[in-house]
Amino acid sequence: MKARVTVTLKTGVLDPQGRAIEHALAGLGFGGVEGVRQGKLIELDLADGTSTADVEAMCRQLLANPVIENYRIELA
Amino acid sequence: MKARVTVTLKTGVLDPQGRAIEHALAGLGFGGVEGVRQGKLIELDLADGTSTADVEAMCRQLLANPVIENYRIELA
Repeated sequence: MKARVTVTLKTGVLDPQGRAIEHALAGLGFGGVEGVRQGKLIELDLADGTSTADVEAMCRQLLANPVIENYRIELA
Repeated sequence: MKARVTVTLKTGVLDPQGRAIEHALAGLGFGGVEGVRQGKLIELDLADGTSTADVEAMCRQLLANPVIENYRIELA
């Protein structure tokens, strides 16, 4: 069983990494880039029977910082 | 227009960050985690009319290292 967790910064939280990418893209001549936000993608290989609640607990305790980050869980 | 680029390490490429997460989860008492891989998620806000080919070029030139990383582009 696989779970895909995407962790993104909440709106309003400054994202210096995203800004750096945005400037680098402009420097390379890519016009039309109006904003960049960088997040994390965590792919988990789980034993069968692991519940969404378990993955939620992993997100809250380790994978994301719920104060400044949102997370989304997709089970596959 | 929005594009979502996910950058993941190719299979076989060592992922120390993923291993660290795996061990931390085990340390927190989460059983059943058989593997973890960490990747990047880049959300781009693009001017209308930007083509997939443009985003592909951004990936090849800046966002991913095609030697060790795969990338996937989703336009929304």
